[in-house]
Amino acid sequence: MKLLGQLLQIQSVSGDESSISAFILDFVFKRRTTWKVLPEIYSGEGFQECIVLKFGTPRTAVFAHMDTIGFTVRYDNQLVPIGGPDAESGDLLEGNDELGPIICPLKNIEGELYYDFPRAIQRGTNLSYKQNVRLDDEFIQAAYLDNRLGVYNALQLCEELEDGVIVFSTYEEHGGGSMPFLLKFIYEKWEIKQTLISDITWVTAGVRHHEGVAISLRDKYIPRKVFLNKIISLANESGIPFQLEVEGSGGSDGREVQFSPYPIDWCFIGAPEDYVHTPNEKVSLYDIDCMVRLYRYLMKYL
Amino acid sequence: MKLLGQLLQIQSVSGDESSISAFILDFVFKRRTTWKVLPEIYSGEGFQECIVLKFGTPRTAVFAHMDTIGFTVRYDNQLVPIGGPDAESGDLLEGNDELGPIICPLKNIEGELYYDFPRAIQRGTNLSYKQNVRLDDEFIQAAYLDNRLGVYNALQLCEELEDGVIVFSTYEEHGGGSMPFLLKFIYEKWEIKQTLISDITWVTAGVRHHEGVAISLRDKYIPRKVFLNKIISLANESGIPFQLEVEGSGGSDGREVQFSPYPIDWCFIGAPEDYVHTPNEKVSLYDIDCMVRLYRYLMKYL
Amino acid sequence: MKLLGQLLQIQSVSGDESSISAFILDFVFKRRTTWKVLPEIYSGEGFQECIVLKFGTPRTAVFAHMDTIGFTVRYDNQLVPIGGPDAESGDLLEGNDELGPIICPLKNIEGELYYDFPRAIQRGTNLSYKQNVRLDDEFIQAAYLDNRLGVYNALQLCEELEDGVIVFSTYEEHGGGSMPFLLKFIYEKWEIKQTLISDITWVTAGVRHHEGVAISLRDKYIPRKVFLNKIISLANESGIPFQLEVEGSGGSDGREVQFSPYPIDWCFIGAPEDYVHTPNEKVSLYDIDCMVRLYRYLMKYL
Repeated sequence: MKLLGQLLQIQSVSGDESSISAFILDFVFKRRTTWKVLPEIYSGEGFQECIVLKFGTPRTAVFAHMDTIGFTVRYDNQLVPIGGPDAESGDLLEGNDELGPIICPLKNIEGELYYDFPRAIQRGTNLSYKQNVRLDDEFIQAAYLDNRLGVYNALQLCEELEDGVIVFSTYEEHGGGSMPFLLKFIYEKWEIKQTLISDITWVTAGVRHHEGVAISLRDKYIPRKVFLNKIISLANESGIPFQLEVEGSGGSDGREVQFSPYPIDWCFIGAPEDYVHTPNEKVSLYDIDCMVRLYRYLMKYL
Repeated sequence: MKLLGQLLQIQSVSGDESSISAFILDFVFKRRTTWKVLPEIYSGEGFQECIVLKFGTPRTAVFAHMDTIGFTVRYDNQLVPIGGPDAESGDLLEGNDELGPIICPLKNIEGELYYDFPRAIQRGTNLSYKQNVRLDDEFIQAAYLDNRLGVYNALQLCEELEDGVIVFSTYEEHGGGSMPFLLKFIYEKWEIKQTLISDITWVTAGVRHHEGVAISLRDKYIPRKVFLNKIISLANESGIPFQLEVEGSGGSDGREVQFSPYPIDWCFIGAPEDYVHTPNEKVSLYDIDCMVRLYRYLMKYL
Repeated sequence: MKLLGQLLQIQSVSGDESSISAFILDFVFKRRTTWKVLPEIYSGEGFQECIVLKFGTPRTAVFAHMDTIGFTVRYDNQLVPIGGPDAESGDLLEGNDELGPIICPLKNIEGELYYDFPRAIQRGTNLSYKQNVRLDDEFIQAAYLDNRLGVYNALQLCEELEDGVIVFSTYEEHGGGSMPFLLKFIYEKWEIKQTLISDITWVTAGVRHHEGVAISLRDKYIPRKVFLNKIISLANESGIPFQLEVEGSGGSDGREVQFSPYPIDWCFIGAPEDYVHTPNEKVSLYDIDCMVRLYRYLMKYL
């Protein structure tokens, strides 16, 4: 979990993913010689902050978004949300502007958000939750498990992956926008028609901690039934604990696969989380382990 | 109307269009030798459940969506809507899960939807209205006239069509997602720049039963004025009864034509319907006849 | 300002941009020989009403939308809004149908919009605010400064432009739809990766008249931080007065750049306006001048 610990320390609100992208790229360059298959690496010019890794002869791509929710500084101590933070007064925020580092509490006054800091913070400065990682035998609790865990899962996958594409995307928390060119790239280059969304979902009445990774049958959008059936059949075969999720709202990078001009299928598979989009996101270690194992299995047999 | 009767018996909520797609494909293969022009048929790999028929040298494409609204089974007897069903307590639903066939009433408790069945239905099972077709001299009333009538119209059109593309699309009722790759295909292959949306609209203060097919001048989205003018001018010339519709909401496959990265025009043309998205959708037989005739005329002269 | 005066007299609600497009095209053909560089001109078939001008070896494209808000005539004296007009009872509207020219007041009855005219107006007729231009030493006030000023800015730019693309787009006020094919064209033809949105923004608590052109750091959508930093650094270098804007809502042609399947950056830069989407839009002449100067600088050094 050392890697996960490092990932959790890097700030990267939507639109400002340079640091996390640089960290992942550096990690990939250092580790790839120890991996079973040496991937081709695509990044930089033409990819914005996104990263694409191609292993062997791929049939399926895994998408993990690198960005997080957060806040943009406006005028008169106001904050504008990035994505959908579930912010409470007293939550600690951090960031930097030209005058130096910032740590300050947030104030939520009837839904309007403000920062409380001795000086004015420069317009357009990005702030995000101050990190506080808590780990015990059963759970990890921290800000930004959504989607550092999805990134962690994707990087774990690289170790043994023979055939597949791993993509680190941006902007997922705030409307999207990198998926369209990433999908264009992987479809036109390798005709990838299957995708898995490596992201974190919600603990609900039907999806609980410690009962395995969740396979989402739908959120606001609906994956193609024939593709879901194929995945569930493989998941059953694998023997790895999983839960079936059905929601009527929420979205992911899968939304943009659905609306892309390519006949690409998608399915969201991820560990369930409590206290979503707060500084106290909480996920079961057992479910994370099931997630990594199920992705390994699916990338082999899908 | 035998064909329409058959189409109305097939379940196909958005995302689960295999059966209706197989039925249409089978019909096309059986009938095409009796058609004036033998079409090229595109389906299967790379088209998901969609079907594209190309006749002669096409200038215009007709889109008819094959999917319907419905419900996904969640947990604790809950249902999540697919598309926008206008569901009332007591409406009968049907479907299948691994334990067998299901027929049961729906319960609408303050906007929350539930099923009422002696046993739990498997998560993710799709249910849709139990069919009940009523036909008299003036009207047809049934579930899913939206858009079985649009499909029926498109198949009627095939008989005499010399030049044109007929497309059966999926996912229209739930956000879309197949139109982008279909538009890419027909534009890149044949440079199609004109499209007609073969779908069903609403009876309103300005659009009534028995007054002809409706040509929509706008819904939530606005077609290009110069294209509308061309269609209205041809409709006038044809002598076929039609009504002009102006709405501020609602959408169709036309929305995705509008937002595609191709300079393709669109216009929605369809018979008006009462009791929309209930099990009792009602359309005038006269208006259906006008719809089929206007499409025949437009495909010839547009 | 003679050109601006002419632009303000032309009606062109979203979907019906033929007249403004013809005017701009005529202007370009007449003036281009006096410009520093003779542009290539793309319009007509395949571009709908849009116009693309290519100067030299372009790195950056400027987008100015030609359409305006307005109203579609429905039934029973009803009006359906095009875009988001902020309409009050008594606002004068104008338009034409087959029976002749129309000038009439609007009635806003609890949010429902009606026209007040002695005869019924034909269904689908477009109406827009009657123009009333007011000019003094400090301000211009008129309907449709949004976005005639953006178009004016783009045409001013043409005079000295050496390398760059100027695009006149349609449908911006009503959901968009021409940007996708325009972006496809400029990216596939010249690999344009930088875009500036020449449009008009809002006077707010943080953005005021007479304090320079506004550079938007975000609206509902968030441009890429590294691109914003580059622009702000150049704006500082230029010495031209500008203001930084941060909003949580609102959108522009930039939204469609964000969601296009190309890795293209965008930034909205425009003068701030009061009384937005009314017949009395008001902009500081000083801010317009700053806007034109900043665009000239950026197109040279970006």
